Amino acid sequence: MEQDRVRPPALRRKICSAEDAAPLIGNGMTIGSGGFTPSGTPKAVPRALAARIEEAHAQGHPFAIRLFTGASTSPDLDGALARASGVSFRMPYNGDATMRAKINAGETAYVDLHLSKVAPWVRAGFFGKVDIAVIEAAAILEDGGIVPTLAVGNNKTWLDLAEKVIIEVNSWHNPAIHGLHDIWGGDLHPEERLPIPIRRPDDRIGETVFRVDPDKIAAIVLTNEPDQNASFRDTDDSARQIAGHLMEFFRHETAHGRLPASLPPLQSGVGNVANAVMAAFVDSPFENLFAYTEVIQDGMLAMIHSGKMRAVSGSAFSVSRDAAEILNRDMETLREKLILRPQEISNNPEIIRRLGCVTMNTMIEADIYGNVNSTRVMGSRVQNGIGGSGDFARSSHLSIFMAPSTAKNSAISAIVPMTAHVDHISQDVQIMVTEQGLADLRGLPARQRARLIIERCAHPEYRPMLKDYLIRAETGVYGGETPHLLTESLCWHQRFIETGSMRI
Amino acid sequence: MEQDRVRPPALRRKICSAEDAAPLIGNGMTIGSGGFTPSGTPKAVPRALAARIEEAHAQGHPFAIRLFTGASTSPDLDGALARASGVSFRMPYNGDATMRAKINAGETAYVDLHLSKVAPWVRAGFFGKVDIAVIEAAAILEDGGIVPTLAVGNNKTWLDLAEKVIIEVNSWHNPAIHGLHDIWGGDLHPEERLPIPIRRPDDRIGETVFRVDPDKIAAIVLTNEPDQNASFRDTDDSARQIAGHLMEFFRHETAHGRLPASLPPLQSGVGNVANAVMAAFVDSPFENLFAYTEVIQDGMLAMIHSGKMRAVSGSAFSVSRDAAEILNRDMETLREKLILRPQEISNNPEIIRRLGCVTMNTMIEADIYGNVNSTRVMGSRVQNGIGGSGDFARSSHLSIFMAPSTAKNSAISAIVPMTAHVDHISQDVQIMVTEQGLADLRGLPARQRARLIIERCAHPEYRPMLKDYLIRAETGVYGGETPHLLTESLCWHQRFIETGSMRI
Repeated sequence: MEQDRVRPPALRRKICSAEDAAPLIGNGMTIGSGGFTPSGTPKAVPRALAARIEEAHAQGHPFAIRLFTGASTSPDLDGALARASGVSFRMPYNGDATMRAKINAGETAYVDLHLSKVAPWVRAGFFGKVDIAVIEAAAILEDGGIVPTLAVGNNKTWLDLAEKVIIEVNSWHNPAIHGLHDIWGGDLHPEERLPIPIRRPDDRIGETVFRVDPDKIAAIVLTNEPDQNASFRDTDDSARQIAGHLMEFFRHETAHGRLPASLPPLQSGVGNVANAVMAAFVDSPFENLFAYTEVIQDGMLAMIHSGKMRAVSGSAFSVSRDAAEILNRDMETLREKLILRPQEISNNPEIIRRLGCVTMNTMIEADIYGNVNSTRVMGSRVQNGIGGSGDFARSSHLSIFMAPSTAKNSAISAIVPMTAHVDHISQDVQIMVTEQGLADLRGLPARQRARLIIERCAHPEYRPMLKDYLIRAETGVYGGETPHLLTESLCWHQRFIETGSMRI
Repeated sequence: MEQDRVRPPALRRKICSAEDAAPLIGNGMTIGSGGFTPSGTPKAVPRALAARIEEAHAQGHPFAIRLFTGASTSPDLDGALARASGVSFRMPYNGDATMRAKINAGETAYVDLHLSKVAPWVRAGFFGKVDIAVIEAAAILEDGGIVPTLAVGNNKTWLDLAEKVIIEVNSWHNPAIHGLHDIWGGDLHPEERLPIPIRRPDDRIGETVFRVDPDKIAAIVLTNEPDQNASFRDTDDSARQIAGHLMEFFRHETAHGRLPASLPPLQSGVGNVANAVMAAFVDSPFENLFAYTEVIQDGMLAMIHSGKMRAVSGSAFSVSRDAAEILNRDMETLREKLILRPQEISNNPEIIRRLGCVTMNTMIEADIYGNVNSTRVMGSRVQNGIGGSGDFARSSHLSIFMAPSTAKNSAISAIVPMTAHVDHISQDVQIMVTEQGLADLRGLPARQRARLIIERCAHPEYRPMLKDYLIRAETGVYGGETPHLLTESLCWHQRFIETGSMRI
């Protein structure tokens, strides 16, 4: 019986349909929702809400909500609500194409934040009050403990702060998922000032469940469906070459004693390149690895399966449909090596700095001096958001950024004279990698960084243009430590906007 | 007797003149030096070294060192060595005009780093080996403990790593300075992974002295002179207005319960505006304040004297000559409320995040979306460096950036369409202040941030040009979430380079 997932009798009386729960959410309300990648995204209530919004709009009534989440979500939430023009304000991260179009058109207000900052800033009142929390759970235990599903995100904060709570209890999940999570953070108010007692990625410091005042629970909706997992593209040559350069670098650093033999705890961003790098570790000489990361992808699960990785800590899974099935099937044994935490903890600079993480994130473009744009295409259009990359890169021991050296059939160079937007400053970029090679920027002044990035990372087709820019900037009238020619520095982007290519 | 400052008999035998000590430093060597502002900068040995370098150059011999410090230093060190063309490589921060010219000309290689990252990265071997440490001390105690002077900086790291050590023992300092310092950090290697046990800015967690293997001490030089303190300009109207806007904001936030009545621990950047803000607290209603900061200026000492501030933790003092005299005279009582730590601890994101600091830093310019340039004039010429601003701004609870709205007699606007360099991304800027007003950017999407920054912070003379840019960018063909017109976004800077003014 799916009802068995809701053990407290008083709560069973709150079980209702999504259609009955959705009207709790009214026009103008602020929703704190589960969801960090499709994992943990509520499903039935958002679909019912989107239908209500469309109905209201058809009748000429305004209806839009403010939507706070963990990070990206799924077509059920961001997709359905964006199609219904039902979101007036969105934070802290979006990955949905329809929502992205609304944001770039100026129709939906968007604030992209460091993911670790969402909970403390909402708690401090910087974003107003949260009306309703909508979260997904695998079960509600006898004592009222709420077992999360495959993402924790900001759910603890939404449960703490919201006036009312809607819980989707999704029986697709193996009950053995109880024990996967480590929920801590109630004492993180600045005036409490407790150190977070994590010394190893696999330290458990909190409870396995969320707690909430049962009187706040306004509705419980039963579901039984998997997450809408995105599939990974097959690893291409470029991703494999990037992974190869990184493995060679890690072997070199450990051989010279600059990194420990089992490497520091690893963080890896989301996407195909990041996944390919993790896959490359499976065939590497490295053993006894740990990951202290944000999102756990297929590649890290493969490392767990292969025995290369001892444990992975994150805030959410983002796995293929196949990997999700295996994870669910083998949850009882796998959960010993997997930990999901609130994103305030998974991305906390205190822990990332203490553990000395090696962080690997992807970029849209980098400039010759090592500044990275990972969010705004041509400076103006937001792609997704900064997510956790800023939390990790700045506090890491070694920050790596990577991308193929060109995009759109070589019409775009990932290495440009000046990025059209900056997310990561050169101080937060120690290693840059493309399929062309790896630039070790540690300890180098700007002009040397420029030569190395052009030589090692830029595509050969764009190297002469970059060298020409650098030399003319260095010898120009204004000179300087990071010489630029301001009449030309962004003309590659402008050329792309006008002609569809950065080529001359 | 000045010799009494060196108590161990075995070490007294190492006392020599600066001229005898300087030859320990040879061409090509890497020097880890004291100095964080003029405070704690070694004096006699650098002067003797500069003379030796000039002599070598006069004889046609090459002679240049690699110079690592805490942050900026004094004319004795950066100034004298730059004039002698004696520095091939400089990190992590420079404030000297002669050195700046060498850096911008490409003659001295320069790496400006987050100040908290210097020690861990040098320890990890990212910058090669340190040959000689040159530090200033107030005394060497019977048990070999080395009492620092008015800056700690990276001295512990230089003493730990250098092959040889030169100590200047400066008897200008009141012996009561022993007890001011809190030296901790030997366990900060990533594999140790200990939480830093600071829960309040005035927690003391370490020793009051440095420790070093006495066999590494190659020379001890006796000096008796004050630091070459820079004087503050008189507070001008613009700085007073900025301070006024900030006090009003703090009163408003505490009244609404978003900040505690005694405010979170404060960090304040270096300079006249920052000093004016601290001075404004003296006449404010705020009590029982703490500062967890990097550099302690006159303004913070005034708050200690007035009883407004309970304690200040930093890594160095940067005070006027008068304040230095008073500090030295009253050291025995003042040191109860003052703590100097290694910059790895004063600037550590773990502590800044835990304490929930409110950070106040100055900027060169900001763009309409809230990105800040605090280092590169017109994108190319480095002014000083990022220093600790990135350590503090990203991990803070509330990050404030401030500057007068114009410079050079209004020829330069501090608010521009796009900054020509980015040090602090909009996610790390919650509050922006100029003498015109204060923009509270929390929770606002980019286009609203732009309107507020133009309205509140830009100088009236530049507002119409900024509004015009914003509207045309929003309605342009490319649109976007942070709309830019790439053919114009940097033309204000280019106009300044060509005409000496950003005005049309």
